[in-house]
Amino acid sequence: MREEIESIARKAREASYTLAKASSEIKNEALRFMAENLAENQEEILRENRKDLEKAAHKGLTGALIDRLTLNEKRISGMVKGIKEVIDLPDPVGEIIKMWRRPNGLLVGKMRVPIGVIGIIYEARPNVTSDAAVLCLKSGNAVILRGGSEAYHSNRVIVKHLREGLKRAGLPTEAIQLIPFLEREAVKHMLKLNNYIDLIIPRGGEGLIRAVTEESLIPVIKHYKGICHVYVDEHADLDMAIEISYNAKVQRPGVCNAMETLLVHNKIAPEFLPPMVKKFKEANVELRGCEKVRELIKGIKEAGEEDWSTEYLDLILSVKIVENIEEAIHHINFYGSHHSDAIVTNHYALARKFLEEVDSAAVYVNASTRFTDGGEFGMGAEIGISTDKLHARGPMGIEELTCYKFIIFGSGQVRG
Amino acid sequence: MREEIESIARKAREASYTLAKASSEIKNEALRFMAENLAENQEEILRENRKDLEKAAHKGLTGALIDRLTLNEKRISGMVKGIKEVIDLPDPVGEIIKMWRRPNGLLVGKMRVPIGVIGIIYEARPNVTSDAAVLCLKSGNAVILRGGSEAYHSNRVIVKHLREGLKRAGLPTEAIQLIPFLEREAVKHMLKLNNYIDLIIPRGGEGLIRAVTEESLIPVIKHYKGICHVYVDEHADLDMAIEISYNAKVQRPGVCNAMETLLVHNKIAPEFLPPMVKKFKEANVELRGCEKVRELIKGIKEAGEEDWSTEYLDLILSVKIVENIEEAIHHINFYGSHHSDAIVTNHYALARKFLEEVDSAAVYVNASTRFTDGGEFGMGAEIGISTDKLHARGPMGIEELTCYKFIIFGSGQVRG
Repeated sequence: MREEIESIARKAREASYTLAKASSEIKNEALRFMAENLAENQEEILRENRKDLEKAAHKGLTGALIDRLTLNEKRISGMVKGIKEVIDLPDPVGEIIKMWRRPNGLLVGKMRVPIGVIGIIYEARPNVTSDAAVLCLKSGNAVILRGGSEAYHSNRVIVKHLREGLKRAGLPTEAIQLIPFLEREAVKHMLKLNNYIDLIIPRGGEGLIRAVTEESLIPVIKHYKGICHVYVDEHADLDMAIEISYNAKVQRPGVCNAMETLLVHNKIAPEFLPPMVKKFKEANVELRGCEKVRELIKGIKEAGEEDWSTEYLDLILSVKIVENIEEAIHHINFYGSHHSDAIVTNHYALARKFLEEVDSAAVYVNASTRFTDGGEFGMGAEIGISTDKLHARGPMGIEELTCYKFIIFGSGQVRG
Repeated sequence: MREEIESIARKAREASYTLAKASSEIKNEALRFMAENLAENQEEILRENRKDLEKAAHKGLTGALIDRLTLNEKRISGMVKGIKEVIDLPDPVGEIIKMWRRPNGLLVGKMRVPIGVIGIIYEARPNVTSDAAVLCLKSGNAVILRGGSEAYHSNRVIVKHLREGLKRAGLPTEAIQLIPFLEREAVKHMLKLNNYIDLIIPRGGEGLIRAVTEESLIPVIKHYKGICHVYVDEHADLDMAIEISYNAKVQRPGVCNAMETLLVHNKIAPEFLPPMVKKFKEANVELRGCEKVRELIKGIKEAGEEDWSTEYLDLILSVKIVENIEEAIHHINFYGSHHSDAIVTNHYALARKFLEEVDSAAVYVNASTRFTDGGEFGMGAEIGISTDKLHARGPMGIEELTCYKFIIFGSGQVRG
């Protein structure tokens, strides 16, 4: 198994050189073929997916997992639509980020180039296979996919049709490869191949990400949990605060940019909390409050210490009354996951303070945390949302799948 | 020891929040005090340095190591001058890299922010202590220094005076800390503290860098060896090719951006190599050639397979004749260290091809590889030269010691 994985990685490295040179036209052509292949072979894909689903049923997997595993016509159209959107994105490779002239006449510039070989380690959702592969292709990177074992048949058939697209466009099929081993050992071997793989992106639960970080010799960009906050300041517009808080929690509770903790300034709490709680209760949101919240609104469960650092991904919300903005910022930086956090206020200086001092990938004034998304930010499709601070932070699109090199134009300069 | 190192890291994390908010004025004031302190306490610094030198002599350390370890008036002035140059650099923190308006009215921007806590692991040169610490301070980062045990007394006294500068400016002294343990175990403990330390920069030999990469749970940006090439193309200006090749090898052979391998197109070799070899021999450069080189010029040693991937850091050069630019590019990408490589040519399309296809941090046309340096590129002082592809590539200055966060200005937007 070790040798086979090393061979996959070595072939990916070879393919990455061809891909780095490939023109936007050829890459887009391959993407068009891929979209075509997935659309035309829907029946086969659904058939393979059913094999995974049957196995999952045998194993007694839970409803949420089965749901993530399931493909249907709509989800396949989603994959196809995703590919078409990636075709429309500008090619980041070759962009001159900046260029300047030195006193000795050297022209020094930074040119955007692909990273090389990217390993994606993910769990049950087979549509990640297509989404991740096409973003890597567009940015000129070879990709090694290691999907969850539950989705193996689905992933294999999707990769087959993506590779067929590469082949039809004259690109090396080794640019997209799936690790064919279902054992956990396979991931461990992959994480040691720092000679061939340049970057690992793990997507999944906390356990997966922790294991990958600990084992990897290759740089990892983590896409961790989102413990997001909305802080309703003393100077907030009350209606706006209710709308934003409601949207951040209820519109789609199962995603990483949904709010998990609501912080409320004590001066505005008596006015803000009763209508807010009413609205949340109508939406079946279970509330867990600090002592002050429970004094103000009767019948709310107690929030324990662990609630402040829990990502519910569900219709559950912890609520805390704070004395001032300092306490709110400290709470966010201490308990949060540095993902997305918002203040609702009309106070100029406090808005600035919040923006400066909250140490998160996305910091909002007067808007819902739910906007943290490559598409919503106008960056196009994303491969995930980085909660790391190196290389890429926040939504990570095709630009973030590149690095740069210095290019220097001289006319015979030597160093004195 | 483990607890003390964790305590150092935790204090650095606390200090990093204060530093991230510190104004350019206050940071520059601290830097001015630091420069003053080092200049005024030269005697004490030299006294402490002598302790290290005596210990090194006892241990029988080699001349090169002793030289790197030695401080004198000139080297202390160099440190002071370095600090003054950092004062003059623009503060990168708070810069809005870009900002755009979305159709729904959201203003989305990327703001440059410090990384947080940076760990620097280095070897014998005590001036790195000052250089690294002041670059981290200017970019708003707290720093944990782990210098070589041979330089412990020197590092300790330098850090004392740098911290005195922080104190005089009202900044927390925990922003610059030195690990006081000389055992190798200390580094291992440090590399596990990913809750407190955001980035590790190792500076030193291959062994150090490999060990750090293997042990670290914290992201590492490597500053690896430089196996740099000059490729003299068939269409080169001969005089220019000789000047550039000579400069790249001879001007300062002991540094990472010096040339280690010279590649020559076979058509130009008979005309180019004789005068080139003569010039190298006058400078006492030992040449090691491929078979074709040895046929052309008699009396040159044979270059073995291992020569092509050796960083001599000395007046030794391997020379190879290639059939075409493809062979040159393949050789560079295969044997090189992806640091700095140059082509000498007057052929437009070949120059473009070389720039596009050589996978190195700095790729040159018609200039010496010796320019790969933050100062020479106009970026100011550098903390090193990254041969990695994530986050920073090539010379790494204060801008590369920052990351960004998204800041979003709304007026009540919620996601539909």
